[in-house]
Amino acid sequence: MSSPRVISDLLNAFRERRPIRGRSLIITLFGDAISQHGGSVWLGSLIDSLAPFGLSERLVRTSSYRLLQENWLTSRQVGRRSYYSLSETGLRQYQRAARRIYAASRPRWDGQWILVLPSFLVDEEREALRRQLRWEGYAALSTGVLGHPGGQRHALDETLQELGVADKVVVMNAHTEDAASQSALRELAKDCWKIDGLEERYRSFLATFRPVLQAVERTKSLPPEQCFQVRTLAIHEYRRILLNDTDLPQELLPGEWAGNAARNLVSNLYRATFAGAEDYLESHMVTAEGPLPPVDQGFFDRFGGLQKKT
Amino acid sequence: MSSPRVISDLLNAFRERRPIRGRSLIITLFGDAISQHGGSVWLGSLIDSLAPFGLSERLVRTSSYRLLQENWLTSRQVGRRSYYSLSETGLRQYQRAARRIYAASRPRWDGQWILVLPSFLVDEEREALRRQLRWEGYAALSTGVLGHPGGQRHALDETLQELGVADKVVVMNAHTEDAASQSALRELAKDCWKIDGLEERYRSFLATFRPVLQAVERTKSLPPEQCFQVRTLAIHEYRRILLNDTDLPQELLPGEWAGNAARNLVSNLYRATFAGAEDYLESHMVTAEGPLPPVDQGFFDRFGGLQKKT
Repeated sequence: MSSPRVISDLLNAFRERRPIRGRSLIITLFGDAISQHGGSVWLGSLIDSLAPFGLSERLVRTSSYRLLQENWLTSRQVGRRSYYSLSETGLRQYQRAARRIYAASRPRWDGQWILVLPSFLVDEEREALRRQLRWEGYAALSTGVLGHPGGQRHALDETLQELGVADKVVVMNAHTEDAASQSALRELAKDCWKIDGLEERYRSFLATFRPVLQAVERTKSLPPEQCFQVRTLAIHEYRRILLNDTDLPQELLPGEWAGNAARNLVSNLYRATFAGAEDYLESHMVTAEGPLPPVDQGFFDRFGGLQKKT
Repeated sequence: MSSPRVISDLLNAFRERRPIRGRSLIITLFGDAISQHGGSVWLGSLIDSLAPFGLSERLVRTSSYRLLQENWLTSRQVGRRSYYSLSETGLRQYQRAARRIYAASRPRWDGQWILVLPSFLVDEEREALRRQLRWEGYAALSTGVLGHPGGQRHALDETLQELGVADKVVVMNAHTEDAASQSALRELAKDCWKIDGLEERYRSFLATFRPVLQAVERTKSLPPEQCFQVRTLAIHEYRRILLNDTDLPQELLPGEWAGNAARNLVSNLYRATFAGAEDYLESHMVTAEGPLPPVDQGFFDRFGGLQKKT
């Protein structure tokens, strides 16, 4: 049976995108699928399964090699074949991302902010701190204040230690009490965290994948390979947006936040395709010891619990 | 009996100071003494009692007149004589100052800060807010943050309303949890609140009045007029320093804070001279209805409780 037009369009659009970010798609595949099946796979399986996404054999080989060098992957040689797994670092990064990607809902916020005042830093130190903390979700609320709603104190302390500035900054736990401040903060968050640009990306994601979900639901039994492709692309695109989403609490986001709709869409797409995708993975991918082992039981907790469609 | 040399030196030094700030000394006299004796006094009594401080009759008249215009004082004419009292505004200002001047000890601090982020203010508004809040004890902790340890939220809200910026700033309650931040804040406070300059003023106060207390204690019975003069000058100088002291909590001040020693000194000077000064006030100052009425009972609560020396 042939794939619905909207799904082949999706793959075509991905293939035509330049530059082709091979490494990023390989990371998605390891995180979303292979990590749940023992964690290791033959390079040849990667090459076969990624060809329809427009990744040439050469690109998969060079991308995997660079991921090895960057310590995202490790490899093992058995006979003439190479087998790849997530490295310890890669696994930790994946687990950190997975908590957000497969979350059932936005975490509750207790209204607390962490503020960092880089009081005694020289310019270079301040800039390095600002860069690193922005990566961890902080934004400059004002010239001399970095803030994060619901930030984790433990993670911050680690960062300050690493940068050697723990005793040169003031860290405060803060909260607002009045409605005026809350609404000013909401306005502020819009600028500081570039909410408009993020919302645009979520809207574009929705526009692309809404018709895909409709097509998947219309199609009685979508072939396993297409299930795998839809699931992989949906998670890939969603994951890429999350990298730029600092997970602001709902209280600081616009009403009807597109990110919520996107989470709902990706979770429904996942439910609709994961079983077919699993069939594909188990029948097409191999390890040094034969086909992939069965999926981890933890897999079924994704998005608050996956239920097989009957 | 003649006044000890150190006390006449004290008065001489005051007399020689230029410019002579007549209004300020009159405010001290009303706040410290007359407010406690019905609140009203004949202009002639002011002139007589302030002459030894180097205030000419003309200066007392013009100063009192300007205080009337500035709404610190009100006046009442009975026959050919003028009687002055603190205005309602003046009384409120005095009461606010008195809580600090006659405090037995530094108030306890709960570790809380109030932070104000002037996020959406244009330059003039930000400058006006910064000026007003500095007056209320706030300092810029960093370019975009005004902060006050133990600030009063109620007072801040009033100020924000008055300046019409309540919905354009973010107000946060904040506290630090780690020792490193506390020590950085202590360093910061030193700069932000110009602690060194303040300490210098307290040390100079101590150097001037320590020998005065010794002289008072050596002198078996200091004449009432000298008691009045010592008490008035000590409170006057101390009050002037407090105007520039934002009452930072002990935790943010240097150890052995000179302000604590100054409070102890002024309170001991007060205990040693108040009874004599009261004799002077009751025998030399008159109202439209005769001598000053007896002192308010609340007077004896000053400095945690005055006890008559026996």
